[in-house]
Amino acid sequence: MEEDILYHFSLSTKTHNLPEMFGDIKFVCVGGSANRMKAFAQFIHQELKLPGNPEDIKDICEGTDRYCMYKVGPVLSISHGMGVPSISIMLHELIKLLHHAHCRDVVLFRLGTSGGVGLAPGTVVVTDKAVDYSFRPQFEQVVLGKVITRSTELDEGVANELLQCSSELQTFPTVIGNTMCTHDFYEGQGRLDGALCSFSQEEKLEYLRKAYEAGVRNIEMESTVFAAMCRVCGLKGAVVCVTLLNRFEGDQITSPHDVLVDYQHRPQILVAHFIKKRLGYIV
Amino acid sequence: MEEDILYHFSLSTKTHNLPEMFGDIKFVCVGGSANRMKAFAQFIHQELKLPGNPEDIKDICEGTDRYCMYKVGPVLSISHGMGVPSISIMLHELIKLLHHAHCRDVVLFRLGTSGGVGLAPGTVVVTDKAVDYSFRPQFEQVVLGKVITRSTELDEGVANELLQCSSELQTFPTVIGNTMCTHDFYEGQGRLDGALCSFSQEEKLEYLRKAYEAGVRNIEMESTVFAAMCRVCGLKGAVVCVTLLNRFEGDQITSPHDVLVDYQHRPQILVAHFIKKRLGYIV
Repeated sequence: MEEDILYHFSLSTKTHNLPEMFGDIKFVCVGGSANRMKAFAQFIHQELKLPGNPEDIKDICEGTDRYCMYKVGPVLSISHGMGVPSISIMLHELIKLLHHAHCRDVVLFRLGTSGGVGLAPGTVVVTDKAVDYSFRPQFEQVVLGKVITRSTELDEGVANELLQCSSELQTFPTVIGNTMCTHDFYEGQGRLDGALCSFSQEEKLEYLRKAYEAGVRNIEMESTVFAAMCRVCGLKGAVVCVTLLNRFEGDQITSPHDVLVDYQHRPQILVAHFIKKRLGYIV
Repeated sequence: MEEDILYHFSLSTKTHNLPEMFGDIKFVCVGGSANRMKAFAQFIHQELKLPGNPEDIKDICEGTDRYCMYKVGPVLSISHGMGVPSISIMLHELIKLLHHAHCRDVVLFRLGTSGGVGLAPGTVVVTDKAVDYSFRPQFEQVVLGKVITRSTELDEGVANELLQCSSELQTFPTVIGNTMCTHDFYEGQGRLDGALCSFSQEEKLEYLRKAYEAGVRNIEMESTVFAAMCRVCGLKGAVVCVTLLNRFEGDQITSPHDVLVDYQHRPQILVAHFIKKRLGYIV
């Protein structure tokens, strides 16, 4: 192609010098919320003791409101919205961006929130396998009307390194477990409080018990396509999500705002520690 | 439930008087982009000649960045992000909101952008049936690990009324056709320009030709779940999307910014005309 327009980033190979803008990227951190990924960019700016005011960081995708993107030294922080389709558009354009920018040996992290399955709220889950609604480690992708299946196994080395980071930090509980990825927040996750609900509390609990037995420790909405695309493109990736509630105990997120803010910061603290170790800030 | 927290709206039955805030809502307009739904709210404010400055409208969901929401007289304008999971969360919480607020006879519109199938760019498509990747008018919903199927037929009366509005306006072409809803923007829509592509230009064109033969005139990413949830909840709904390109001619969106802005305004003009007629502004 003569020109490649990364439409949902509002970037293009013709109007932007992507190697100059992004050539030194080594870590890409993605998460659903735009505000949270801005906060992460400011946090990693402080953690890496980079020059300049963290408040001055600029949204690289300001030409669109689909995603936001911040670059802080070798770290790129991008929002991806909610659900598999939304993160999949972002990942396609991100992977093209990294290719055009000639980036090498990049590690990708998804930092998110999730519902816990048998864990105390605030626990951080580093994903072993991302699994679908039947607890299978696979992602179904439609290509020209046909369903193909892709593996969702993530990089074991990065996951273990993150667990090691948590034991060094000793500030919050972290476990490695399977993460179930659903395509909605209510019926697909067995919530009783949606606009539609056709099952009983007992049926819900039975489904969650089966999930727990299959090694599922948390439920979110993006991990399978993240894992599948990392794998098929040869990128090392990890999914790090905090649990906001224990789904065995309820469906609604009732914790006070400041508690939720503290929880949401935990994946950021863990990944920042990982990045600092990799860059030699911590020996 | 004693309290219902609409988490992704940052609203709750305990902290907000929903009947007072929303009881007079008669039209709900939803679309992917937050900026566009703000612009629509300001536009409908002007069109309805309501008192006050359109610039002063306030985001009702300012406590969260998941969605934005504006109320202008009897019209609610909400963003839903990209893809079925993202709009599905919004619809669950919207339908609960309308229930708690005791709203009656509400009409829902999705105003969006799409890829055209055999249409000139800028054509507005009012959806007859929302169809899946196999051109079936159905939506597959996972409930507790089991796949159930829901019908995606939309309200015929509202669609015809919108077509009538377009012939009154005579400012842009409008057709009624089937809308294919996919779960990604690249492989699922037969784009050759994603990070991953395993098919040829000829195979892509064959798929699009089959879609055209099945009555598909545009492709987007939210219509099936929108139609299914409207139907199962007894709400009248319509999907009104402008086409940004003709997919038989390419994959990238290359039109100049001002042309795209003009196109994106067209569904807004059409729905505003519908609302003004219903409210008796136009006889």
